[in-house]
Amino acid sequence: MYKSEQLAQHLKQLIENGTWPAQSKLPSLREQAEISGFSLMTVMNAYQNLEAQGLIYSKEKSGYFVAEQSKNQTPQATTLVSLNPKIEINSLVFKYLKSIQSKDIVPFGSAFPDHHLLTPAKLLQTLSQMARDRNSYDQTSNLPPGNLALRKMIAQRYAMQGIATDADDIVITSGGLDALNLSLQALTQPGDYILLQQTTFYGAWQAAERLGLKVITLPEHPTHGFDLQAFEQIIQHYPIKVCWFMLNAQNPIGFTVSDDLKYKIAKLLHQYHIHLIEDDVYEELYSGLNKPLPMKYFDSNNLVLHCSSFSKTLGAGFRVGWVYAGKYSEQIQHLQLMSTISANTLIQNALVEFVSSHHYEKHLRQLRQRLEKNKKRFTQYLKQHLGQCCEIYSFSGGYFIWIKLPLYLNSLELYHQLITQQIGVAPSALFNVLENNQHAIRLNCSFEWNASIQTGLDTLIDSILNIQIQS
Amino acid sequence: MYKSEQLAQHLKQLIENGTWPAQSKLPSLREQAEISGFSLMTVMNAYQNLEAQGLIYSKEKSGYFVAEQSKNQTPQATTLVSLNPKIEINSLVFKYLKSIQSKDIVPFGSAFPDHHLLTPAKLLQTLSQMARDRNSYDQTSNLPPGNLALRKMIAQRYAMQGIATDADDIVITSGGLDALNLSLQALTQPGDYILLQQTTFYGAWQAAERLGLKVITLPEHPTHGFDLQAFEQIIQHYPIKVCWFMLNAQNPIGFTVSDDLKYKIAKLLHQYHIHLIEDDVYEELYSGLNKPLPMKYFDSNNLVLHCSSFSKTLGAGFRVGWVYAGKYSEQIQHLQLMSTISANTLIQNALVEFVSSHHYEKHLRQLRQRLEKNKKRFTQYLKQHLGQCCEIYSFSGGYFIWIKLPLYLNSLELYHQLITQQIGVAPSALFNVLENNQHAIRLNCSFEWNASIQTGLDTLIDSILNIQIQS
Repeated sequence: MYKSEQLAQHLKQLIENGTWPAQSKLPSLREQAEISGFSLMTVMNAYQNLEAQGLIYSKEKSGYFVAEQSKNQTPQATTLVSLNPKIEINSLVFKYLKSIQSKDIVPFGSAFPDHHLLTPAKLLQTLSQMARDRNSYDQTSNLPPGNLALRKMIAQRYAMQGIATDADDIVITSGGLDALNLSLQALTQPGDYILLQQTTFYGAWQAAERLGLKVITLPEHPTHGFDLQAFEQIIQHYPIKVCWFMLNAQNPIGFTVSDDLKYKIAKLLHQYHIHLIEDDVYEELYSGLNKPLPMKYFDSNNLVLHCSSFSKTLGAGFRVGWVYAGKYSEQIQHLQLMSTISANTLIQNALVEFVSSHHYEKHLRQLRQRLEKNKKRFTQYLKQHLGQCCEIYSFSGGYFIWIKLPLYLNSLELYHQLITQQIGVAPSALFNVLENNQHAIRLNCSFEWNASIQTGLDTLIDSILNIQIQS
Repeated sequence: MYKSEQLAQHLKQLIENGTWPAQSKLPSLREQAEISGFSLMTVMNAYQNLEAQGLIYSKEKSGYFVAEQSKNQTPQATTLVSLNPKIEINSLVFKYLKSIQSKDIVPFGSAFPDHHLLTPAKLLQTLSQMARDRNSYDQTSNLPPGNLALRKMIAQRYAMQGIATDADDIVITSGGLDALNLSLQALTQPGDYILLQQTTFYGAWQAAERLGLKVITLPEHPTHGFDLQAFEQIIQHYPIKVCWFMLNAQNPIGFTVSDDLKYKIAKLLHQYHIHLIEDDVYEELYSGLNKPLPMKYFDSNNLVLHCSSFSKTLGAGFRVGWVYAGKYSEQIQHLQLMSTISANTLIQNALVEFVSSHHYEKHLRQLRQRLEKNKKRFTQYLKQHLGQCCEIYSFSGGYFIWIKLPLYLNSLELYHQLITQQIGVAPSALFNVLENNQHAIRLNCSFEWNASIQTGLDTLIDSILNIQIQS
């Protein structure tokens, strides 16, 4: 647990056991730093944490006060977010993606692994061979649910994790986002309630807005990522139709939820009959020996639609994803016929050959090893240089590091400043549409360490350190 | 003009000049056949034509009567179609596409040219070469608006027709349907009025339903395909926001609207400030020397979003289309980032090389020649064997023939019967959600004539001839 979370836990106890009653004034930041022996930064982060939980509030120029405790009311942990048709995030995402697109920008803001680690030679060779053969462009497989052999192979990979399935449960889509969007469209009507993680892949916010859904958010648990208690409170109070969660190497924060917690989440989904769209595009990029289980594993009632893709393991340009759709297969195919129709037939055929060979597993093993090594190097360097003023979240699995900045640093401003210096970072505003939490950035750490990477990181570190505390 | 249309025109005059007043009974079918010297089929088709125009009506077992003429009211030519969320056409399209998917089904129902005529060897060779090169999967071009070189090349092809444009006007999409859907989404809000051709590509019905639009339909003009007068009446009476038209080798009927008529349509669009989504996926498959002009040519006010693709000329499995989006480019890119993101990068790169070479034009020339030759052969054979009982519409361009069946033959029933005999045809119910016009089929005539094609056609012909008149 991070220092600021330890401190926050301690202060929370003081509030809950009545040591600090409602409306009493808390020690100032500097006083608290002296009392506790923690740094000013740590105290600021701890106070912000308590404020986000609704336990304390701040008055301008007067300091922090203990909030009234309201039990048995609408859960404090949640927020009903009003989305409007011109929601800011769309143009923010657009500008952001355009800004980091140039090859001159250091790609710490990218959502994809270093492309040198993807597009394995053997796959390209297969593609090259198949591309010459007219049969690879077979029109009859150019319709939902997609290439049968590929669906069988995907079904087998579920079976390897103990999830019973067959090819008919799987629908091939034009990439992972297509799988997620189709699933959400199949499960909802405008006006339905959807539960999102508060800090989450921006595609979820955009899909909810486009489909006219009411969004409730679930804040991250400070240590395990998923707050089961808050989750239960929310589903007791709101008629949630669908949850859209990422629980393995969560984008952007990076945590992976434990099997035990997943089991409990699944039990609640079952009890309240709530569907889950499981975004699991990082499932193969775990570290350690065992692939983490998806929520689908714990789903005995066809409530989970598990979505994944080859974009993060083989290459984003392939645009091949899938959804374990089960009984929703036909409905999703209907929606596909009206929109994306299918993934590229040549690529699907090449994937059949590549995925069925030992080359695929070998590629995944190497990819995992390299990502783990590179992320470790980044983590060390960042902790060494930013550990005093930032909280560095580097969980096992995936290739993102989540950096909580000092509270005086706005992540959007930092992103804008860094872009002028040719460095891309993903500001938290991309992942969280609530205003009060824009002090974090996501860093892509998939790159092999070299001089230009280090120079890029140094520029980033300098920028963070050189912005003065303004109050 | 077809015989039935000549007769209908003649009878229409008799009604309009008062020879046959309102409520008077028309001669029976047999009487009319004797009077006019036309066959019973021709008379039936003429009466149906007049009924569709609202000029006459039928009473069960009593025959046909002249309708009251209501001038200066809401135009008779149009229909406001109520779509509901579970509109029948979605599951009909789904079942239809599944039913013709098998290789054992004679592909007269397919929407794509014979695949032997597509996927030119030179393109496959280019693809094969590029597939080996990791740079072909470049992630930076994996974002809207798509590959710059490809957009430049597409812009040049517009310029060849005298349409000023540059790469920034073009957005690459995941196939033509994606281009159409994105355009419609960019231009409309739920509840807006959209004008569709009454018999049109089913994707237009589905898109309108999904976006919650109110649909008005424009019936085909019996000879030139597009009824300018009815069009003007409709836009005078309804607040049409967007038209979605196909005017070159229209799917499914096959007509191409003249330049003169296009110019007049454009003037009306300008006058009423109505946007047009122009579906022009068959633009390259003209017959004769000159490529027909798109509506975009006549558009001086950025009202036309011209959509096309490589699916009908190079292969459906490539999933690369585009829209000439002009000032709507950024808006469409926003929508793409939330849904399909981009077309496959490898394919885009290969298309750049192929389309810029002389091989592309050579391929198109050959494709056009073969389609024209094959369609001619089909037309002759069908006219010879079905000319007595059906009207065979075989316009220049494209590869579809539209067959109007005798009125006692329901096209859906014919389709169901033929599928059991391993023959696929596209029934008019796929293209027209109005109930009263389900007596036509679309035939794909792109195939080289051979024994099995002839056998397939013979089965089709026998089925049509052997179903007895039931009244």
